[in-house]
Amino acid sequence: METKLIKDYERLLLKYKDLSILASAKAVLQWDTETMMPQGAFELRGQQLAFLSKMEHRMITDREIGDLLESIERSQGYDSLDQIQRRNVYLIRKQYDENTKLPEELVTETEKQTIIAYKHWKDAKAAKNFKIFEPELRKMFELKKQAAEILAPVKGVRTLYDAMIDFFEPKIAEETIGRTFEQLKDRLIPIISKYSSYNCDTDWLKRTVPQSTQMEIAKKVAEFINYDISGSNARGRIDRTEHPFTIGYYDDVRITTHYYEENFTSSLFSVLHEGGHALYELNLDPNWKYQPVGTACSFGFHESQSRFVENVVGRSRHFWTYFLPILNQLTSGQFSDIDTAKALEGVNSVKPSKIRIEADEATYALHIIIRFEIESALFSGKVDVAELPQVWNEKYSKYLGVEIQNDSEGVLQDVHWAHGYFGYFPSYALGNIYCAQILNKLEEEVENCWSEVEKGNFEPTRQWLTGNIHRAGNLYDPMELLLKVTGEGINPNLFANYLEGKYRAIYG
Amino acid sequence: METKLIKDYERLLLKYKDLSILASAKAVLQWDTETMMPQGAFELRGQQLAFLSKMEHRMITDREIGDLLESIERSQGYDSLDQIQRRNVYLIRKQYDENTKLPEELVTETEKQTIIAYKHWKDAKAAKNFKIFEPELRKMFELKKQAAEILAPVKGVRTLYDAMIDFFEPKIAEETIGRTFEQLKDRLIPIISKYSSYNCDTDWLKRTVPQSTQMEIAKKVAEFINYDISGSNARGRIDRTEHPFTIGYYDDVRITTHYYEENFTSSLFSVLHEGGHALYELNLDPNWKYQPVGTACSFGFHESQSRFVENVVGRSRHFWTYFLPILNQLTSGQFSDIDTAKALEGVNSVKPSKIRIEADEATYALHIIIRFEIESALFSGKVDVAELPQVWNEKYSKYLGVEIQNDSEGVLQDVHWAHGYFGYFPSYALGNIYCAQILNKLEEEVENCWSEVEKGNFEPTRQWLTGNIHRAGNLYDPMELLLKVTGEGINPNLFANYLEGKYRAIYG
Repeated sequence: METKLIKDYERLLLKYKDLSILASAKAVLQWDTETMMPQGAFELRGQQLAFLSKMEHRMITDREIGDLLESIERSQGYDSLDQIQRRNVYLIRKQYDENTKLPEELVTETEKQTIIAYKHWKDAKAAKNFKIFEPELRKMFELKKQAAEILAPVKGVRTLYDAMIDFFEPKIAEETIGRTFEQLKDRLIPIISKYSSYNCDTDWLKRTVPQSTQMEIAKKVAEFINYDISGSNARGRIDRTEHPFTIGYYDDVRITTHYYEENFTSSLFSVLHEGGHALYELNLDPNWKYQPVGTACSFGFHESQSRFVENVVGRSRHFWTYFLPILNQLTSGQFSDIDTAKALEGVNSVKPSKIRIEADEATYALHIIIRFEIESALFSGKVDVAELPQVWNEKYSKYLGVEIQNDSEGVLQDVHWAHGYFGYFPSYALGNIYCAQILNKLEEEVENCWSEVEKGNFEPTRQWLTGNIHRAGNLYDPMELLLKVTGEGINPNLFANYLEGKYRAIYG
Repeated sequence: METKLIKDYERLLLKYKDLSILASAKAVLQWDTETMMPQGAFELRGQQLAFLSKMEHRMITDREIGDLLESIERSQGYDSLDQIQRRNVYLIRKQYDENTKLPEELVTETEKQTIIAYKHWKDAKAAKNFKIFEPELRKMFELKKQAAEILAPVKGVRTLYDAMIDFFEPKIAEETIGRTFEQLKDRLIPIISKYSSYNCDTDWLKRTVPQSTQMEIAKKVAEFINYDISGSNARGRIDRTEHPFTIGYYDDVRITTHYYEENFTSSLFSVLHEGGHALYELNLDPNWKYQPVGTACSFGFHESQSRFVENVVGRSRHFWTYFLPILNQLTSGQFSDIDTAKALEGVNSVKPSKIRIEADEATYALHIIIRFEIESALFSGKVDVAELPQVWNEKYSKYLGVEIQNDSEGVLQDVHWAHGYFGYFPSYALGNIYCAQILNKLEEEVENCWSEVEKGNFEPTRQWLTGNIHRAGNLYDPMELLLKVTGEGINPNLFANYLEGKYRAIYG
């Protein structure tokens, strides 16, 4: 009996290993599509990716996995499995159920609708007219609601929106998020109102820095965070794309950035942000390679790592104390008139705006809270798809004090809904919240973390992040991991305190 | 009955399409491995490629393919299939048999031996000692002989070596190749002896040309042959690797080159050579995409296309008439003292040497003939693995007049045998022979081909090659295609005539 259990478990892991390898191979093609692929290869690449996805789906839904899971779960010896083994079984079961409980018709229909909705979203955005997108968004939403209705009991969650969120941030109820975001909103609005009135000098950020110099800056920054892109054991690389991203698996995690000659910090912060994501993937436990437990905890935790490196470190006095001389060295003194105070003021300016991806650290979370509230209202039936632009614009006016002029700069700005990614947005702001809680603990445990950053040494911080977060992989659900690392549950006040502290120090 | 036949045929093609797509996806990973992959990702990449190969093998040997083939071949309506359909069935049958007739044990053993033999070949080459490689090469050879014994009757060929050659150059007997090579050798030896005595000036080829300039030259040359690497419909790209190669499928065919600052023509000719390979793949009939008939004819025909562009065009008076001014423009007049005559002399110098991949156009074929004779003697039992260095050195002395000092510059120079690629070498020289025959026909049919090249217009030539060779895909076996295109069987004299004519014009 015992032997059969072990055999089944090992067979199950072997099947998962194949899946991991296939997914990692697909990631290389996805990376290539954005970076290297000749433009004329578009259709062929579509066929390649579709084929690999078909394989992947077939492997995920393979009946043998279902049989192995059942046999393991029902085994007398199940309790003899250790925590890691049980977690692996649990995560494979979750993936298997999510992929097999939906009727094939619904899956196919949703896939087709993704392409149609994306096309209409693009057209609508270009025409600045939500009406063009509305019927296809409605259909996409209905399909996702159907999926949520089936998956909610499978996942053991209460609401339809819970079932959506669970894909990105497992086991956090919308109720918890709602309460947390409510608290955060109450703290953020006065902070933003106070510090956005400050007229800070950001002109120096627009000084021309040639692409070649920005590439040198990117290399230097990668070196600072210990993201190896050139050594004989390098496991990363940096390329150029319009929208920066991180992609890869274990020993091959690549990031991209963009270079705007009149906005050099755009690339700087992109490299720090994506570098934070990459460090997470690169520092997962190698003993858990090819196992579900050896993957990242959640989208929110991933975002906590990118934001930690980008904002907490990259916009800190300590980093700029180290980095300003480097910057001047690489630009032949182009910023020698800028001191740390002025630098900090520039990279931390608070300014309510209409576009999420251009938002600063403080207002960003409000963009997310708006989307969360809207998604929640959609799934509970309190708002209809047709009302989205109106609701959107009202919230932007109320929370951020900006007046949306057209749908393109409003409800149509993000692609997520066209892809059917309802429930994704909250993770971004949860990342901010986790991040501040993590910072709090780090400062307690690594007293010299900041003095070392000032010397250009990020390693003590990186090692602590690796030890506490990266190496935990997917052994815990996000709320468990947060508790484990910080000793407390989710607490948005630390993020608000962190912002307040930083702005007070900068703006007095 | 008829309907079933068509259904079976379409199902068979669908299965082949999946295979083509998977192979093309794998090619992107192989390309990435050589060009972009971070060095630390080596082990992961090995896993990815092994997994995709396993998939590929499973798909090729899928029982359903066997059943479909049998059903189609036995169908009453088989004769109602057209030539293209019958060729597709034939080629899939060939691939299926080659992959299913060998016992799994032999396949696995050979795969393992490839890794072991490769490692020992590398060690032996570094130590300049064949003895280190000998036992592993012997084992590899024995495994390949076992395979040949099984496959010879399946392929309907006479000798074991025939069965090996058939993988690269279908349906050409070693007897035919032997006779052809014998004729060629008799013509080449006096030509080489005559023209290698000429003391030509090649010093100007060593003038330093920075890598950035060489990259511009590569772009210009790509443009000349109409290999699009930058347009919005580009289907190619050029990257840097130690050993140049071409890889890809239909709409995504990439080449690589190397840049030696003291040898700029090395990259120039690499780009032309690989560009010739790429043109073949890019100009296959798009109506036959994802079908076996829509692949290249043979390794020899592929080589005929690369050699055509590299040697026949790239080392011609006509090309240099066009190219010298361009070269001077790109190098700020660095070669303004070189006229066409001097240029031609430099890039066509004949010099017997020890290393195949460094050989000139005339001596190259002798390197191949030596390898062919050795492989033939090995498979017929006339030579033992232990005797290889001695036989090798004797032939190099006799045919090329060079004395091999150690195994590293002799029998160990090529990796092919370590990989088990017996029967591959002949294709290189067959490519030369096809190439000269093709040239002969081209000049007959496209009278202005050379005057247009002088004006920088390669298109008439390229279009003729596409119409006659590229578009024929794999509809014919190489000897049939040669007959179809040139109106005659294999004839090595045209290659000898071509060389003689060229050298006479250059050296008087």
